Amino acid sequence: MAGPHPIDYAGASPRVRAVFDDIRHTRAVQDVNNFWKHLANDPALLERTWASVKQVMAAGALSPLVKEIIYVAVSVTNGCPYCIASHSAAARKAGMTDEMFGELMAVIGMANETNRLAYGYRVPIDAAFER
Amino acid sequence: MAGPHPIDYAGASPRVRAVFDDIRHTRAVQDVNNFWKHLANDPALLERTWASVKQVMAAGALSPLVKEIIYVAVSVTNGCPYCIASHSAAARKAGMTDEMFGELMAVIGMANETNRLAYGYRVPIDAAFER
Amino acid sequence: MAGPHPIDYAGASPRVRAVFDDIRHTRAVQDVNNFWKHLANDPALLERTWASVKQVMAAGALSPLVKEIIYVAVSVTNGCPYCIASHSAAARKAGMTDEMFGELMAVIGMANETNRLAYGYRVPIDAAFER
Amino acid sequence: MAGPHPIDYAGASPRVRAVFDDIRHTRAVQDVNNFWKHLANDPALLERTWASVKQVMAAGALSPLVKEIIYVAVSVTNGCPYCIASHSAAARKAGMTDEMFGELMAVIGMANETNRLAYGYRVPIDAAFER
Amino acid sequence: MAGPHPIDYAGASPRVRAVFDDIRHTRAVQDVNNFWKHLANDPALLERTWASVKQVMAAGALSPLVKEIIYVAVSVTNGCPYCIASHSAAARKAGMTDEMFGELMAVIGMANETNRLAYGYRVPIDAAFER
Amino acid sequence: MAGPHPIDYAGASPRVRAVFDDIRHTRAVQDVNNFWKHLANDPALLERTWASVKQVMAAGALSPLVKEIIYVAVSVTNGCPYCIASHSAAARKAGMTDEMFGELMAVIGMANETNRLAYGYRVPIDAAFER
Repeated sequence: MAGPHPIDYAGASPRVRAVFDDIRHTRAVQDVNNFWKHLANDPALLERTWASVKQVMAAGALSPLVKEIIYVAVSVTNGCPYCIASHSAAARKAGMTDEMFGELMAVIGMANETNRLAYGYRVPIDAAFER
Repeated sequence: MAGPHPIDYAGASPRVRAVFDDIRHTRAVQDVNNFWKHLANDPALLERTWASVKQVMAAGALSPLVKEIIYVAVSVTNGCPYCIASHSAAARKAGMTDEMFGELMAVIGMANETNRLAYGYRVPIDAAFER
Repeated sequence: MAGPHPIDYAGASPRVRAVFDDIRHTRAVQDVNNFWKHLANDPALLERTWASVKQVMAAGALSPLVKEIIYVAVSVTNGCPYCIASHSAAARKAGMTDEMFGELMAVIGMANETNRLAYGYRVPIDAAFER
Repeated sequence: MAGPHPIDYAGASPRVRAVFDDIRHTRAVQDVNNFWKHLANDPALLERTWASVKQVMAAGALSPLVKEIIYVAVSVTNGCPYCIASHSAAARKAGMTDEMFGELMAVIGMANETNRLAYGYRVPIDAAFER
Repeated sequence: MAGPHPIDYAGASPRVRAVFDDIRHTRAVQDVNNFWKHLANDPALLERTWASVKQVMAAGALSPLVKEIIYVAVSVTNGCPYCIASHSAAARKAGMTDEMFGELMAVIGMANETNRLAYGYRVPIDAAFER
Repeated sequence: MAGPHPIDYAGASPRVRAVFDDIRHTRAVQDVNNFWKHLANDPALLERTWASVKQVMAAGALSPLVKEIIYVAVSVTNGCPYCIASHSAAARKAGMTDEMFGELMAVIGMANETNRLAYGYRVPIDAAFER
């Protein structure tokens, strides 16, 4: 009653199964995460989100590891427990070591601190950084 | 009246000048940014913040470029104009290309979107990601 | 010890009971939600918050359904689990269908994404939108 | 130097022009907003974002007016000046009256307030709202 | 065209003037701030917001200075330029010294940093702090 | 697998124990909180964070009570459950009464509301508050 329930592969429509299959194939996993099972309630959202994630997170000028690190930085800044848990795991799978994790946390913490110092001191943008 | 004014090198105390000198030397720049000139109103804060930034942003398991990219990801998520301007410039100085910038923005945007989908669908953390 | 405990109707003062009674009557419910039972620790806050909610959420130029949808949009953007749960339920009670819920989530996600693209690309406000 | 510059129609590649043309046609406007001119620096991002916006913001179970109202609610909660300006204008174009705007602001403000009361009082989710 | 314009005393309705008069009297100022002139577009919102601000910000168990300090802490965390400017000024008027301002900024920065460390390390709440 | 585990005193290195001992001594507690046990995975972060917290939270122009109140204001605005729980407890230990807690929550809620009204009405900063 309080919201859509997750949709498992067994109970999924062919349209949803096609996305699940592509996720499983692309990521070489047995089953998709809870995130996708919930989005499956809206097949158009599921398709669009997966298509974007697949395109955006693929190796490019930035490596998949750096992209997962960025994902963690955003998720920690927003305080999203699900996203922190799933993307920290994805970052480790992509090669993040304990030492990298520690440095990532330190930079995220520092940036969140200095963002507020810049706000609070009402620091004007340096001419060199102006458009 | 509305807040502390920036303190230039010429008007700075020896304690503040020592920090300014270290920033200029470490970064090989002529002058420090407005951020430091404002923090100079509180010498203890200036010293502590610079000491932390110097330690945290140095090359380690993550490169200075990746660290600046993380800083941009946090600043864009928070919507801090000063921090976006200064750390985008720092990231470019550390080697960020136009292509990397584009991918960085795409991942930040995507992560901010899926963070909200995870919240809104109230997705429970997968057993595999539990502590 | 870690914070105020909820106050049930049975243990409430006449001043608190008067608010609880008005909530029950206005919403045609048997009991008030945990939110109100916690606010009851501060009768002035309880009275002021309920008076505002009652006035703000009543039908006006916007319908109660649209108002609950706005509430969900804010709560999901902030990532407030209690508020997402309670206002998603309230929105459904006011007529939100599964299809509407899906579209609501899609717009919230998209807006959170493009907000960050606007920040990150430092897009200046178009003259047409200036004050 | 501080970031990508906007790309006007005259200086755009055929790939970018195709998106600009579709925006102009779909929205029946002479020129695209600054937002799109900045995203044009990354044609893949431009295409993907426009395709999503076009699909997500189209009339469905929720009207275009309600969708723009949701967009404003997110943008105001995040404090994104560009997004507030552009989507307030879009909402007005879609039929938002002054009275609706006033009620929208009131609900956004109230929701941001009660979100924090729910956090601060650490209100547990009612059994009725649990999954 | 992009939003409601401020309403000055001269052009205000009797209902709005009554609120403006009470603000001027309570705060012993010649004119009200831009904030109130904008809210005047929605007299009900103006009345409700002023009544709440007057009640909430009055001396109580916490002094007006501490209350303004809290207001600044929230506004800096959210990054609201208008609110930072106006409430920093109000805090100074209520007695905030330069030294207090410096310490306030330091605590705000530190709290925003450690909030993210608690998120990122997924620190479970100590039994002693549980409800 | 999903993240670093807490490090107890018994299993800690001499470097980590030194920090734990200083926390226990400074705060006159038997054991350190979970927060420190998790940060102990990165001794440099642990040392730096504790040194900063010790310096920033000490009595100065603002009392320890006011500093804990500011910490709660930031944590509630960000919606950080761990930080709200631990710093509400710390504030109570420093002297926060039930009445102060109620007023703190009321100001936090109000500030989060009016921050959004200032954003949404796009209120320009008064000349008196300009730099």
